[in-house]
Amino acid sequence: MKNSIGTSVILTVFGESHGPAVGVVLDGLAPGLPVDENRIAESLARRRPCGPADTARVERDDFRIVSGVYQGRTTGTPLTILIPNENVRSGDYAAFEHIARPSHADYAAQQKYHGFQDPRGGGHFSGRITAGIVAAGAICRQALEAKGICVATHILRLGDVEDAPFTDVASEAASIEAKRFPLILDLEERAEAVILAAKAERDSVGGVIQTGIGGLPAGLGEPWFDSLEGVLARAVFAIGGIKGVEFGDGFGLAGLRGSRANDPFRLRDGRVVTETNRSGGINGGITNGMPVIFNMAVKPTPSISRVQRTVDFVEGKEVELELAGRHDPAIIRRICPVVTALVSVVLCDQLALRYGTDYLAQP
Amino acid sequence: MKNSIGTSVILTVFGESHGPAVGVVLDGLAPGLPVDENRIAESLARRRPCGPADTARVERDDFRIVSGVYQGRTTGTPLTILIPNENVRSGDYAAFEHIARPSHADYAAQQKYHGFQDPRGGGHFSGRITAGIVAAGAICRQALEAKGICVATHILRLGDVEDAPFTDVASEAASIEAKRFPLILDLEERAEAVILAAKAERDSVGGVIQTGIGGLPAGLGEPWFDSLEGVLARAVFAIGGIKGVEFGDGFGLAGLRGSRANDPFRLRDGRVVTETNRSGGINGGITNGMPVIFNMAVKPTPSISRVQRTVDFVEGKEVELELAGRHDPAIIRRICPVVTALVSVVLCDQLALRYGTDYLAQP
Amino acid sequence: MKNSIGTSVILTVFGESHGPAVGVVLDGLAPGLPVDENRIAESLARRRPCGPADTARVERDDFRIVSGVYQGRTTGTPLTILIPNENVRSGDYAAFEHIARPSHADYAAQQKYHGFQDPRGGGHFSGRITAGIVAAGAICRQALEAKGICVATHILRLGDVEDAPFTDVASEAASIEAKRFPLILDLEERAEAVILAAKAERDSVGGVIQTGIGGLPAGLGEPWFDSLEGVLARAVFAIGGIKGVEFGDGFGLAGLRGSRANDPFRLRDGRVVTETNRSGGINGGITNGMPVIFNMAVKPTPSISRVQRTVDFVEGKEVELELAGRHDPAIIRRICPVVTALVSVVLCDQLALRYGTDYLAQP
Amino acid sequence: MKNSIGTSVILTVFGESHGPAVGVVLDGLAPGLPVDENRIAESLARRRPCGPADTARVERDDFRIVSGVYQGRTTGTPLTILIPNENVRSGDYAAFEHIARPSHADYAAQQKYHGFQDPRGGGHFSGRITAGIVAAGAICRQALEAKGICVATHILRLGDVEDAPFTDVASEAASIEAKRFPLILDLEERAEAVILAAKAERDSVGGVIQTGIGGLPAGLGEPWFDSLEGVLARAVFAIGGIKGVEFGDGFGLAGLRGSRANDPFRLRDGRVVTETNRSGGINGGITNGMPVIFNMAVKPTPSISRVQRTVDFVEGKEVELELAGRHDPAIIRRICPVVTALVSVVLCDQLALRYGTDYLAQP
Repeated sequence: MKNSIGTSVILTVFGESHGPAVGVVLDGLAPGLPVDENRIAESLARRRPCGPADTARVERDDFRIVSGVYQGRTTGTPLTILIPNENVRSGDYAAFEHIARPSHADYAAQQKYHGFQDPRGGGHFSGRITAGIVAAGAICRQALEAKGICVATHILRLGDVEDAPFTDVASEAASIEAKRFPLILDLEERAEAVILAAKAERDSVGGVIQTGIGGLPAGLGEPWFDSLEGVLARAVFAIGGIKGVEFGDGFGLAGLRGSRANDPFRLRDGRVVTETNRSGGINGGITNGMPVIFNMAVKPTPSISRVQRTVDFVEGKEVELELAGRHDPAIIRRICPVVTALVSVVLCDQLALRYGTDYLAQP
Repeated sequence: MKNSIGTSVILTVFGESHGPAVGVVLDGLAPGLPVDENRIAESLARRRPCGPADTARVERDDFRIVSGVYQGRTTGTPLTILIPNENVRSGDYAAFEHIARPSHADYAAQQKYHGFQDPRGGGHFSGRITAGIVAAGAICRQALEAKGICVATHILRLGDVEDAPFTDVASEAASIEAKRFPLILDLEERAEAVILAAKAERDSVGGVIQTGIGGLPAGLGEPWFDSLEGVLARAVFAIGGIKGVEFGDGFGLAGLRGSRANDPFRLRDGRVVTETNRSGGINGGITNGMPVIFNMAVKPTPSISRVQRTVDFVEGKEVELELAGRHDPAIIRRICPVVTALVSVVLCDQLALRYGTDYLAQP
Repeated sequence: MKNSIGTSVILTVFGESHGPAVGVVLDGLAPGLPVDENRIAESLARRRPCGPADTARVERDDFRIVSGVYQGRTTGTPLTILIPNENVRSGDYAAFEHIARPSHADYAAQQKYHGFQDPRGGGHFSGRITAGIVAAGAICRQALEAKGICVATHILRLGDVEDAPFTDVASEAASIEAKRFPLILDLEERAEAVILAAKAERDSVGGVIQTGIGGLPAGLGEPWFDSLEGVLARAVFAIGGIKGVEFGDGFGLAGLRGSRANDPFRLRDGRVVTETNRSGGINGGITNGMPVIFNMAVKPTPSISRVQRTVDFVEGKEVELELAGRHDPAIIRRICPVVTALVSVVLCDQLALRYGTDYLAQP
Repeated sequence: MKNSIGTSVILTVFGESHGPAVGVVLDGLAPGLPVDENRIAESLARRRPCGPADTARVERDDFRIVSGVYQGRTTGTPLTILIPNENVRSGDYAAFEHIARPSHADYAAQQKYHGFQDPRGGGHFSGRITAGIVAAGAICRQALEAKGICVATHILRLGDVEDAPFTDVASEAASIEAKRFPLILDLEERAEAVILAAKAERDSVGGVIQTGIGGLPAGLGEPWFDSLEGVLARAVFAIGGIKGVEFGDGFGLAGLRGSRANDPFRLRDGRVVTETNRSGGINGGITNGMPVIFNMAVKPTPSISRVQRTVDFVEGKEVELELAGRHDPAIIRRICPVVTALVSVVLCDQLALRYGTDYLAQP
């Protein structure tokens, strides 16, 4: 499905960094869901660069709903959102159109698209595309909240800064989004300092982010191949900067014995729960009613201002590259709302598949 | 697609652990590919329990090709393989049919299937299903080899045993498969000792496995949502024991700066390569021509013989569970050929999508 | 999806006419549905040749459920049915393996599969595959009946014999299936005579069949591209002998003016109905609550015993062909239960998509 | 997939009749295909109302390519086209928002979308959406032409006017498109007279249209369920006015004996052809190298100005309806370029699946 994801609720992304607009089509949402443009704007604001730790390219993100909403509610037919590109400086890129920026998609895309891809600002592979995902996700997330389901994403590790893991997603979500950096603990200044230190050395940093989903019913996921782990992993690996996904204790489980790794089941007020949640809320690809928790490795932004060795793939020679342009020394702050949005879309799809197309709008 | 994966080459799995048979349908393979039943048998043998470190349930895996092969070659129409279940002792499971084995799919499946799932031996969620995947993968892997593409999986970490990472997939693949344990270095005895030590304490162990793909052309993968990372991750998360996936240096990248994490491009004999391969052969979701390398976290087998606390979800009470039955103290050895098989199927799909349905059989 | 159809309930077909078996995998059915093997056997019997008007190849159709059923009910995991091929006389086909039987798939398949297709008895393109569809459909149809939905198919036109169209699907379904020929009116002998007359002249006949669906709720179908018309048409065109599909008055509407073709809405006992049903129960691709009615053109069986002119596509020369083998002078009787079965599967998928995966098993 | 169609080349439609815009996303087209905006404009012009036989609502169709084209060629990433709605008179519809126009989607959509659908001008079910399809199809058709494949659609029957069937698609395509009415013979005035006669009586007319595809290679189509017949039928049934599809002689075959219906194979200049083409170029769901020919029944436009009996589905009472607004007395002229466009998209998908994603752009 290439640029589409989902079975009952289907998200399609389109656009290039320096083209007229980026956007999304969100097809299959239940009719009658409220569409709050303020929520969309807030989500976009959270993704937007907003200080010295981010890129200097700031877009206003004046999104426009082109279809699928009537009188403030979803119609049930495709919902299209367009976000024009305005603050574009393509000249920045002209100089190295044929030069493979290390660890960027340039060379791989050249091999795939034979030079016809739009090279300006990464073209279709730019993080700019995520603006549309965030807008779509804001609508889905609101629908999930009405069902008591909460999704949030925070920075778990950035340099030597270590945030607390999720323990109660809903309350921590509020705390995370009240801050300028998505963190549970009050570590904003230290986190920013890590990024600025890298920036000062014309370098970039990565980190680990964590998504929590509270309130999901047990029984979601369609093994073998639409296990919830598989579906979520496929979704988040769409984001270029993500290079690893682990559910629950993930790679930590690899070093444990079964007697330590297993989550004992208990009864709490007649409800089946697990004492620990090392499985991240998923057993055999199906939710078990505990919070779904997963971590993602975010690589450092590949655009750095230092001199790098690389090749000109048209001329066929080795060259040195010194990137000008406006770059994020870290995308980790901005990637959090994108993951939250994408996961919200995926969960709406899963719920619609399981409970029917009208479910999300039912009282 | 639930129990199916793929777009042009589509694998469907079916069966239950204690039902008459497990099997697969593999649809869309190019017509004319050789089907070597010895290769299939060898792959199944690699997955089979074979010593004190494995379960005592040994199946002969007398597979039977039911459709899609004529005169030793694929017809291009659905290829069905059936593997009867023979060595079945369902009585082992009768005692705890309503008791949620910790970190198994039992409870989640109960919530999803409302008690109608086949509980014997894990039913459809049993590792037994992977026998079919291995059989299908053997055919696909042979097709890949004819195109110069090599897939292999080994144990990277098991207790305190650490294998060498892939450096040259094709030659290491041969070395791995010549051993009784899938390892590059000569660490078989130490690896087995780790497992037997856990078994002696009625416990189990997990570990980290690594898959390498050599010889893939650059330009494979369909971002955003069919990025090769997303497609491979979705596939391997189908396997119940896998709880994490990382490409290249994965979570290791999260702690690096960009200047250390980026892979500089170079020319070698006129070919574009990268000096390092921290990206695992994939940039922006598309192969860059370097070996594709990814690691997976395998949790310890949840079936252990120790007393565990859990619940009876039909009676609605807390109970203690002491598993009899025949279990693997570690599935890490047996999971390697399964991942290799599944990845081989996925790659055949990707190649057919990119180069056409006949490509794999073209000389 | 090639040999699979459906989104939430997915049917996959496999097998060849003279291979070991044909079969189906039916994935995504609600858990807990009763599986009545007698119903399956009855449906298979209806498809089976049973007299001088049919082929002399009679299979016992000893189907075997290989997975997905436990204690007489669906488990919710893939349901696999295998039907062995027994009465096989491949020698009949050896003589003309490279000779394109006119209006058969032989030549087209040769171009697609480059000679690797199984040529015996039409291989994967044989009507034999429909046995599996009928078995799967029997389970689905029973599930629909529990929801008050009735599917039936009868011969509408055969030679100069013209049956009455559906007016009340449920009662007419009973009447149709009580007869040896699927007809509403008592025209069995005349219908058989048409076929025997053709047979006597070593020829074959086609006809028009009609499917009716009673009890479907309004609001089914997902325009634009999963309009119920599109979904049903795609399904039935899988059957080789069907060359046309029309909904309601179909091609008859083309000759009418709007004032005659429109179906006026009326209220009957507070329920919205249409006075006429020229639209066949579908407006804009969505059910309107009236019975869904559609007709299909069935071409005469292409296998006839007369001498035909054709080519040997391996030798590259024109030849004369005189078919021996055992053929149906008309498949129209046997195609009716196949269409009913396939439509039943499609409707289960549509209902599961709209109302959720558990819907069909809910009381 | 709801509003999307295709596997390798995927078309998604969005928009409402009276919303800001309609449009399409076309994903998966080969990179490097020329995009000629004049061709798109010409195709849109062919679909546009242009005389007394059409609706008075004339849109300028100022399409805008929002993504996927760079320097006049496809990039290989999603191609988005937006067509603003300008000449909108929503007031026309306010009066009967809750009144089911007979044989329109209003009531069925109400049942599906529970009143949240956009009712203005038919909302998402308006023929207006087809403008986007025509624009996308123009790009695909040009790509097909470069491969020697020609698609065209003409009116085969309209009232008592009967056009000649296709005999040589490429040359007849030119002739059809040179005329103001899509006809092979010089019957434009008679055709227009049929429509004007209906209009004079405040009525509408339907008809039969025929699509021909010349130059398709043999071997396309993926039985069972992606038979070319199934794929094409699913596509064209997306168009609301189409109520029947037949391939080759279609329903005419139902009345023939096999000896008359079969197409004998012959050799012509070493190439395998059929003497007749009653199968419409498809055997067993796969192309046989002959022109693919199929007819579609177009019902008369349901919007007529006569008084009609119907119901107010909100008030729950029977009412009389007299439609004002601007309607086509026949859409048959305008539907022809839509079918041609949609079929062109489907064929690009089929070719990309069979020969690979780059095929269409290869010289």
